[in-house]
Amino acid sequence: MKIAILGYGNLGRGVEAAIRQNNEMELVAVFTRRAPETLKIKSENVPVLHIDDAEKMKDKIDVLIICGGSATDLPVQTPKYAEYFNVIDSFDTHAKIPEHFAKVDAVAKKSGKVGVISVGWDPGMFSINRMYAGAILPDGADYTFWGKGVSQGHSDAIRRIEGVIDARQYTVPVPEALDAVRSGSNPELTTRQKHTRECFVVAEEGADLAKIENEIKTMPNYFADYDTTVTFITAEEMKLNHSELPHGGKVIRSGKTGWNGEHSHIIEYSLKLDSNPEFTSSVLVAYARAAYKLNQEGKSGCFTVLDIAPTYISPLSAEELRKKLL
Amino acid sequence: MKIAILGYGNLGRGVEAAIRQNNEMELVAVFTRRAPETLKIKSENVPVLHIDDAEKMKDKIDVLIICGGSATDLPVQTPKYAEYFNVIDSFDTHAKIPEHFAKVDAVAKKSGKVGVISVGWDPGMFSINRMYAGAILPDGADYTFWGKGVSQGHSDAIRRIEGVIDARQYTVPVPEALDAVRSGSNPELTTRQKHTRECFVVAEEGADLAKIENEIKTMPNYFADYDTTVTFITAEEMKLNHSELPHGGKVIRSGKTGWNGEHSHIIEYSLKLDSNPEFTSSVLVAYARAAYKLNQEGKSGCFTVLDIAPTYISPLSAEELRKKLL
Repeated sequence: MKIAILGYGNLGRGVEAAIRQNNEMELVAVFTRRAPETLKIKSENVPVLHIDDAEKMKDKIDVLIICGGSATDLPVQTPKYAEYFNVIDSFDTHAKIPEHFAKVDAVAKKSGKVGVISVGWDPGMFSINRMYAGAILPDGADYTFWGKGVSQGHSDAIRRIEGVIDARQYTVPVPEALDAVRSGSNPELTTRQKHTRECFVVAEEGADLAKIENEIKTMPNYFADYDTTVTFITAEEMKLNHSELPHGGKVIRSGKTGWNGEHSHIIEYSLKLDSNPEFTSSVLVAYARAAYKLNQEGKSGCFTVLDIAPTYISPLSAEELRKKLL
Repeated sequence: MKIAILGYGNLGRGVEAAIRQNNEMELVAVFTRRAPETLKIKSENVPVLHIDDAEKMKDKIDVLIICGGSATDLPVQTPKYAEYFNVIDSFDTHAKIPEHFAKVDAVAKKSGKVGVISVGWDPGMFSINRMYAGAILPDGADYTFWGKGVSQGHSDAIRRIEGVIDARQYTVPVPEALDAVRSGSNPELTTRQKHTRECFVVAEEGADLAKIENEIKTMPNYFADYDTTVTFITAEEMKLNHSELPHGGKVIRSGKTGWNGEHSHIIEYSLKLDSNPEFTSSVLVAYARAAYKLNQEGKSGCFTVLDIAPTYISPLSAEELRKKLL
């Protein structure tokens, strides 16, 4: 299976590494918007090409994994390249997924290719788990907790404050809220009761720290509805202790069964990730396999993780899977 | 969607209750091997019929949920009734699943019906989670823990010992083993290190308790490889404290990503079930919907949970699911 990567940021580098873990896959090209000669990739003997040359490679690539951002890259790139390739992306602007789906579906149906969108963990594995748990326990409630992990959006928001050089924001689930959900009591939880926000900030010399802390804690949408802590650290401490991008979270469904709803059940799916982008990349690579298999079967159009049977993402045959995993 | 139940034990009663939670489903018949007039079911205005009359109802039932045992019932019943109905079962003799699949597949392909086998939580939801996690993190290890919960097979084994009136055996995961797995250290664990077995026994008056305890603890396959505790209780205590059938467990995958495997990840799927049979029944009912939808699309033959896309088990449309869950 010949794979190409479009975009070589954290996600693209993660895909490059994940392909090495899958024997039947081969990385055949990395496409970039930069001048190709300025980009050094880790794989040897794999060409780095300008994005404008992608179309010429259309018969040499089985799946193009698009590693751009959801704000401006993917809404354009995924439909565009679905004309030439089986494509896959991690589009994660939840509210715009139906619109993105429709655009990719129209192009891919016409070109006879497969597009798989919104692949990763949320949307992605978390969506799958909400879907299974909700169908199995219709009389119940869903809870999603994120963290402990770095929220890049919240870190960026802090960096935009005057006097801030660098910042890292961790989203942390509240242990008491988790316990309440796991008890099966179906609690109603406010935003503040579910997560706290821990901020580590490097400030300019002489900056007004009290003012920065207040600006963070009162920032609407991002921090005002949460219990937030702000800790000022040095640039060295930031580099030493906060240079990784861990994340994770839990999707929990609590539901009842029985003639009178007399029995409670808890289904919990939990991720603890040392590297958020590398895990997302690993999910992308598994679903690249599905895109390829679906297209080999003659399918075309747009798919999401909810539309794809589990066997499609495995390198093993359905027979082997039945024997080994059931 | 018109559903019928074959077999009215714990599982059949659970299916009856689960159907009530799904608006678009209707229970239209319960089939039994007993004399139908001796069987009292909870649903009003639903006929109880003898199993020999099932075939006559073939045009009035969309899916037959077969609630028999894996040892002798399902190997015969599921292929037999796949000739007339879309069928679904919870066949759980892991080693014989490929053989059972082949038999059901042959009949269902010929009759144009859909059979879904081995539905429940293990096999079932645990299999799905092993499949997803293994495909996403190919460089890793799988761990399955069961419990805390009642093992009916182990309880039965104790009941066969001379002098024992009743027994309940709980399988309990060892907390230290769970911690080691969750740390990402990929430990190698022996049988004894993973689970302990707690036995509650009602003995005959005057029975040799030390002898019973020794027979339990040294029983090959069932207890000899485990740290086992035996507690003798009264029949009243048994009824009061051990009349339910809770169970559950965890499927954990620990794996590495990165160019040099430098990042660890933990994927954990966990079930905490007040009623093992009712939860299994709820999974059966959700997959009955899938059997019906697949057959409506013109599909036939045998399927497992691994072969079925998540959307099929939901009452919502693919569009609604994309909007709500992704």
